[in-house]
Order: sequence, then structure tokens, then C-alpha cells
Amino acid sequence: MASHTHRQVEERIRDSFARQSMMASIGATIVSVESGRVTLTAPTGEGFRQQQGFAHAAVVFALGDSAAGYAALTMIPPEAEVMTVEMKINLLSPGEGCLVAEGRVLKGGRRLVVVAADVWAELDGGGRRHVAVLQGTMIPVDHR
Amino acid sequence: MASHTHRQVEERIRDSFARQSMMASIGATIVSVESGRVTLTAPTGEGFRQQQGFAHAAVVFALGDSAAGYAALTMIPPEAEVMTVEMKINLLSPGEGCLVAEGRVLKGGRRLVVVAADVWAELDGGGRRHVAVLQGTMIPVDHR
Amino acid sequence: MASHTHRQVEERIRDSFARQSMMASIGATIVSVESGRVTLTAPTGEGFRQQQGFAHAAVVFALGDSAAGYAALTMIPPEAEVMTVEMKINLLSPGEGCLVAEGRVLKGGRRLVVVAADVWAELDGGGRRHVAVLQGTMIPVDHR
Amino acid sequence: MASHTHRQVEERIRDSFARQSMMASIGATIVSVESGRVTLTAPTGEGFRQQQGFAHAAVVFALGDSAAGYAALTMIPPEAEVMTVEMKINLLSPGEGCLVAEGRVLKGGRRLVVVAADVWAELDGGGRRHVAVLQGTMIPVDHR
Repeated sequence: MASHTHRQVEERIRDSFARQSMMASIGATIVSVESGRVTLTAPTGEGFRQQQGFAHAAVVFALGDSAAGYAALTMIPPEAEVMTVEMKINLLSPGEGCLVAEGRVLKGGRRLVVVAADVWAELDGGGRRHVAVLQGTMIPVDHR
Repeated sequence: MASHTHRQVEERIRDSFARQSMMASIGATIVSVESGRVTLTAPTGEGFRQQQGFAHAAVVFALGDSAAGYAALTMIPPEAEVMTVEMKINLLSPGEGCLVAEGRVLKGGRRLVVVAADVWAELDGGGRRHVAVLQGTMIPVDHR
Repeated sequence: MASHTHRQVEERIRDSFARQSMMASIGATIVSVESGRVTLTAPTGEGFRQQQGFAHAAVVFALGDSAAGYAALTMIPPEAEVMTVEMKINLLSPGEGCLVAEGRVLKGGRRLVVVAADVWAELDGGGRRHVAVLQGTMIPVDHR
Repeated sequence: MASHTHRQVEERIRDSFARQSMMASIGATIVSVESGRVTLTAPTGEGFRQQQGFAHAAVVFALGDSAAGYAALTMIPPEAEVMTVEMKINLLSPGEGCLVAEGRVLKGGRRLVVVAADVWAELDGGGRRHVAVLQGTMIPVDHR
């Protein structure tokens, strides 16, 4: 992306992000935006746990799905938004601590965008554990 | 399920449900528990929306995944819990108003339980709209 | 579907089916065509087995995916075909004997059609065993 | 893998591969076997096409699922085999020419192995096109 375009894309994503109350509720923030690649992070909040105290699968899903959706948003015309058509998540290990989701575009397209995401738990002593992989489809929708 | 067993199963589910802070955060409640079939409901809360004001996909996922997981819990030994191995969601229409998730067991098993769920939006004028279908795998884990 | 339209839809499906060499190779035939619902069958052929002698997952997939795709075809304009965008299969038990796949439309649409399928093994002594469930997305494509 | 172990693993895979008549039927061969990573190839055979002449989704599935399954087989005890629990495929572009599937293990485990695969079409003029991505779960089964 050209520097100018990149700033516009990032603005669109920050604007959309700000309007998703779900992202604020789970305490998510944007780490980075590149063409076809977006990274988000969120803590394992008190209010979003499963019965054993780990991050609820839905929070891991929320973060991975959003990172993938915003990655798709970097690849489509500026007047469009994206919606999730379908998403598959495989949970690899319990989510805890600081969660980081890296979304990426596997295949762009005018009609559909195929995406993937990895979610990691950053460990206190350094290093990170692979928490989940997601694979899905986004559809551009004109929101005007 | 025998009446006595049924009460025990329902207690296990209400107990597990109470320990999932995610369920309280989204305002979810248990509608019904039958053998292999559990129904949950939640409003489309202010804090759980996507950028257009509809229920965030992650809330629809949370409700469907939990209904499916609790349906699996009705079919396994009392000392075990279940965790989501993987879950696929197809979103059919925007979620709004009162969401209702019906989880069911497709195939029980000692090692794995295959599950499905439907999520509906109950409409103000009566009737309901199909919001999502989920299909996935739960694994029994001994939590002692 | 009106009787006339129904005949046309069935002809389109039989025509498309005949052009799919994969269907002939696995010995598949059409059992029934209704609006939004198509049933196919195929034997567990010698050449399509996995290492234990059961039907290979790919044959179960082929039959379920095709039944779902043809179910979608009954719901779209006559000049279009459908292609599989994505498909998820959960295998419930080994496939053997006569396989029967029932595809159905969960949600029609101009841009995408969400589908599901069940695959059964018909048992020698009567009755049937649930072999697989599929859930996926078809996209109408204009083939002219 | 130690050199000796590696030869044993490769033998197990070649032995299992030879017993899968599906692999012979589609003309598949093993390209390479590494720890947690297996590559297979097959032509787009006459008998395995969809209605437009491209490789049928089920052949792309067969190759990707098998590459992923054999990748899992490199990571489990020698007396076990693996079976597909579930598999999700996203089709990115039409399959034609020589198909190559690269399977890999995302997360090993005693009870389940999470896998992924990419399927490519090798182009006549060099280069390759991304045909499909798969993400799924394998289960070790003792076949004695």
C-alpha cells in the first residue's frame, strides 16, 4: 500500500473498530495494520472466561475473527465493509494472559475474501503458546 | 433420562454455567435442558455489537457453542466436563433482539461428541429468523 | 416448484450430473430432486477405500458435497451453476455398503447459498447408520 | 526424526498409502515425508472432474486430507493409525493440471492431532496457483 492509502486504510479500520462495542467490551486494541494482515490484542478479562478460568472460546473467536475481517478490509474498495460468511476455529491450547490474534488474507476477490487467523497467548516468562487457528470467508458489503 | 438423573444433569449444567463469566457478561440464561439438547437465550446487548449495530458474530458463536457444549455435557459421565475441540459457524442473517440457541448432540462417544446448534432471533411481531448454524466437536475432560 | 419448473430443474441437475465424471467414477446416481433438497446414492466401491477397507472420507465428502450443491442448484436462476466455496465435514462412523447423501438448503440467497448434507450407510438388515454431516457454502456462477 | 526412525515412519506411510485404493484410483503418489509434514501429488484425472472440466472438489479434498493425515501419522506411536475426525476445506481457485498437497501438523497430541494442508496446481509455464486450504482434526486409532 502507498503511504497515503495505508493511512486511509488504517483510519477505516480504526473507525470500524471503534464502532464495534464488542471490541471495547473485551478490551481489544489494534497492534498493527498492513496490507492483508492485521494484528489485534486483548487481555483474558475477568468477564470472559469459561468454567475453568481460561479465556472463553468465544473471546478467542472474537479476536481471531476480527483480525481476519480487518485483514480482509485492507484489500477491498473503500466504500465497502466486510461481514463474516463463515468461520471455523480449532482450539489448540487454553487461552490465558495476553491474547494476540494475527489475521491474514489467503485469497482476495471481488465477491469473497478467504481469510485465516492465528491466536497466541503471550507467556509471562517470554515466548508464546498457540491457542487457536481460524479459517473462514468474508463478504464485502456496501454499507451506504 | 430418569427424573432423578435429569435433575442431576441439570444441576451440573447450571453449576458449570454459573462459573462461566462469559455467560453472565452477555446476559445468557438457560431455557431448557433435555438429554442431548440444551436451549440458551441472551439479548443483543449494547456491549456486544459489531459496527452496524447487530449482534457481534462472537456473541452468536458464544451462545451456539455453549448450547452445543451443554448438550454434550448431558451425555457424558458426571465426573467429566467438555471442551470445544473445533467449531464451524455459518452466519445466515444479522442477529438482533432476543437470541435463542438450540444445541444438540449428533453423535455421542466416549472419546468425542459431535454437536450442532442453531441460533435464532426472535422477532417482535412473533416468529423467528434463522441467524446461524454451528457444527463442531466436543471432548470430555476430567476436571478433578 | 410447479410441475413444469420441477421437470426443468431436474433436467438441469441430471445434465450437470452427467458432466461430472467424478459422479460416474464413484457409481453415484440421483435418488430424488425436490426444491431445496436432493438425494444421491453410491456404493462403497472397491477403488474408493481407505486403509481399513471402509469408504474413503473423500467419497463420503464427494457424495455429501454434490447432494448439497444440487440442492442449491434447485434454488437459483436457470442460467447459473453453483460451485463450492467451502465445506466442513464431520465423520460420525465408518462408511460401508450403500451410501446415501441427503443435501438441503439452509438459506438461499442471490450471492451465496448455505447448505447442509447428511450421509448415511444403509445396513443389510435394514436401518441406517449416520456416517457424516456436512455444512458449507455454495456460490452461483454464470457459466455462459 | 532420527534416520532410522525416519525410514520406519516412511515405510508405515507407504504401506498405509498402498492399502488406500482411493489413492491409486486418483493416481496419487508420495512426494516427500518429513516429521509433521507430508507432500502428495496427483494429476487432474479424466475420471475425477466436475461439470466444467476442473478437478472435482472431492479430489482436491482427497489429496489435502490424505497429506494432512499422513503428516499426523509421522507424529504418533508406531502401532496406531489415524482417522479424520473433521475437515474443513476452502476452495480458492479451480484445480487443474498437476495437483500438489502439502499437509502439516499444527498441534500434536496423544488424543487428537490438529492438521492443515494447502493444495496447489502446478502451472505449465512454471509457478503454481493456490487451489485450496484445509484445516482439520485427526484421531489416533489402534488398529490391532
